[in-house]
Amino acid sequence: MLLSGTVVADAETVIHDGAVVVEDDTIVAIGDRGDCLERYPEHERHACDVLMPGTVGAHVHSVQSLGRGIADDTELLDWLFEYVLPMEASLSAEEMRVAAELGYLEMIESGTTTCVDHLSVAHAGEAFEAATELGIRGRLGKVMMDKEAPEGLLEGTDEALAESERLIERYHDTAGGRIKYAVTPRFAVSCTEACLRGSRELANAHDGVTIHTHASENRGEIAAVESDTGKRNIHWLDEVGLTGEDVVLAHCVWTDESERAVLAETGTHVTYCPSSNMKLASGVAPVLDYLDRGINVALGNDGPPCNNTLDPFTEMRQASLLQKVDRLEPQALPAKTVFEMATRNGARAAGFDRVGALREGWAADIVGLRTDITRGTPIHDVLSHLTFVAHGDDVTFTMVDGEVLMRDGEVEVADPEAIRKRAREIASGLEAS
Amino acid sequence: MLLSGTVVADAETVIHDGAVVVEDDTIVAIGDRGDCLERYPEHERHACDVLMPGTVGAHVHSVQSLGRGIADDTELLDWLFEYVLPMEASLSAEEMRVAAELGYLEMIESGTTTCVDHLSVAHAGEAFEAATELGIRGRLGKVMMDKEAPEGLLEGTDEALAESERLIERYHDTAGGRIKYAVTPRFAVSCTEACLRGSRELANAHDGVTIHTHASENRGEIAAVESDTGKRNIHWLDEVGLTGEDVVLAHCVWTDESERAVLAETGTHVTYCPSSNMKLASGVAPVLDYLDRGINVALGNDGPPCNNTLDPFTEMRQASLLQKVDRLEPQALPAKTVFEMATRNGARAAGFDRVGALREGWAADIVGLRTDITRGTPIHDVLSHLTFVAHGDDVTFTMVDGEVLMRDGEVEVADPEAIRKRAREIASGLEAS
Repeated sequence: MLLSGTVVADAETVIHDGAVVVEDDTIVAIGDRGDCLERYPEHERHACDVLMPGTVGAHVHSVQSLGRGIADDTELLDWLFEYVLPMEASLSAEEMRVAAELGYLEMIESGTTTCVDHLSVAHAGEAFEAATELGIRGRLGKVMMDKEAPEGLLEGTDEALAESERLIERYHDTAGGRIKYAVTPRFAVSCTEACLRGSRELANAHDGVTIHTHASENRGEIAAVESDTGKRNIHWLDEVGLTGEDVVLAHCVWTDESERAVLAETGTHVTYCPSSNMKLASGVAPVLDYLDRGINVALGNDGPPCNNTLDPFTEMRQASLLQKVDRLEPQALPAKTVFEMATRNGARAAGFDRVGALREGWAADIVGLRTDITRGTPIHDVLSHLTFVAHGDDVTFTMVDGEVLMRDGEVEVADPEAIRKRAREIASGLEAS
Repeated sequence: MLLSGTVVADAETVIHDGAVVVEDDTIVAIGDRGDCLERYPEHERHACDVLMPGTVGAHVHSVQSLGRGIADDTELLDWLFEYVLPMEASLSAEEMRVAAELGYLEMIESGTTTCVDHLSVAHAGEAFEAATELGIRGRLGKVMMDKEAPEGLLEGTDEALAESERLIERYHDTAGGRIKYAVTPRFAVSCTEACLRGSRELANAHDGVTIHTHASENRGEIAAVESDTGKRNIHWLDEVGLTGEDVVLAHCVWTDESERAVLAETGTHVTYCPSSNMKLASGVAPVLDYLDRGINVALGNDGPPCNNTLDPFTEMRQASLLQKVDRLEPQALPAKTVFEMATRNGARAAGFDRVGALREGWAADIVGLRTDITRGTPIHDVLSHLTFVAHGDDVTFTMVDGEVLMRDGEVEVADPEAIRKRAREIASGLEAS
């Protein structure tokens, strides 16, 4: 396939009147449109206004999508224990499948091609099946809670780790390497030391399996960890093995100097979720400081109940605007840096090679956007447009590993209205309960 | 016309399976759909998923729309004097007309039916003509700068006031009361005392003319005013007559206790522009404190160079999220309050009666949105959806004073592609110069 348009190959490389040529799952050429047309005259052609690498949602909860809007205007721990966890606990396997499908559908429609997805305790296999079927690239993990958890979510430590191992064996590195596993303890508050240490052992025992958890999102959370362990949260996670180049920590809003040093030294990845941090009033992550220290910072939408969308462009805009106002520095987090966070940094956090930029020999994970709209008039700089103006609604084309998931705004890998209809039915039952 | 759908009449009133009946420029009935159909069987029918009052952009710069994205990542005073004002100064009458049309087009497409619009120094009449033609409701004003201004924008005091008066006589209270005038000194930094006092005299001399200016957006600005006048900005504005129930002050980010007392005592309206305040790193307006004091706070997108869109739903979401994170209070500015700010409070600030809610006898300023989308699945609460999820792209229907401006997503009062095409041509010339 020969895709043409303004090609934003990465934050530094914009090719006007460019093209990307895809064969099987790989980009085989990228450059001037005329040259590509000459070299690949037989390839099917498709034009978009702008082409860019698919974005990476490096911390999402697809299966919370049925809870969009159920708990506005509430604080994290209440939000979690009173609304979101009981909802997760109530879902049947079929309902969990629909929840995951709805989440992936929103990602595909709005330009996310890779996600690092925090599932739920039960029925995690349903999300792996949904991701496999819908064609999104994902690093998924079943959530473990063996300490503090509402009824229906609490598991024994061995049971939680054994189920994780079963899922690793079944799904890790499947679909041609498109689906991978992250061992996923929910957060230190809800996991015993044995579960956290077991997570590290499990990851070490399986090639390419990584770790994904929440950390230091909220002051109540770090106080609870400190009260239990006598340590600041990041030090505690470090002690039990949950730092390193194969670890993604979502949020990291409340960290002190010594914790930031640990994140930097260990090469731990941080996912910044600005909308969620704002909506739950968690605080502002010290992202500029993290970047100065060489910490890899990615972006995430978190879940629909705390965002309330999975639109990556909304998050890109928010990422920059929140840092600017928090620091009172208008130059903070310019468009280029945000673009890198949403693409290449995300792919590094997610642990996928050859993903996050459009390059020869890299995976064909590509999204196309329309800009022939009033909001897109004029465009003085395409990176500014993508960061500060564009919206998931502008995405018309989505490809992962060379497979077209959406073309001309029509999803080709699922029946969106059927998914939405069933999701509405389930959600109305949740309200009634 | 009989419009049906989920009717959000105001922040307190949601009618499921409801209808709004419009005759001429007025809402003649609102209520249950079945009842309305029975009472008005002959009326043309149109269905939307959700109907709500059109939003009010209580501080916008339509004519800056050609500068969308020209000055990202810069601070207010540099942004203004190095980029935005030179752009404004460079526009011919025809270019200003296109700039205004592009701005109003974006508003109509994304759900703003009333704006309080800060024009430019020259060619302000072009924007009045554009607003009249495109059918938006507006409180517009020619900008006055008789003190500090780049070449091409500086005017004599008498000249500025005389041109304002000419425009008042020509355009104020025209188009059946849909177009009104606000005397518009740019801000205290760029206006002499004579100009500011003259603004008050001009407003007092013409029935229904109000005043609109920027105030206390930025620390550099308030320092400059204090250095010139020996007073805090709001005290200075109060002294020269620029406070009161007929005054809209945009921003008011940096105010002290005594200034807030003045705003409250005088009934001065404040327009909160969260995205602009974030992007220019101006700061966070103390909106909860203003509301506690009974100050009327409206919402505005400011201009495309500092936002970079005129989408009112993006601003509603941002309004709440920014207060929550700034205060670390997740309950801050819930959806209902935001909805009021975007509608009824805006109409009060703009000085239009019978606008800002859907009620019998009120003006038929109505927008309709689609919700049959993935982002709109599920909807647990329609006000939450409108505040935290909806986007200008969801607006399919826009009516002002009973006139349909957009139906089924198609603008009926202009040729959008012709406006966008000409805007692109002009903008590419701006870049080349």
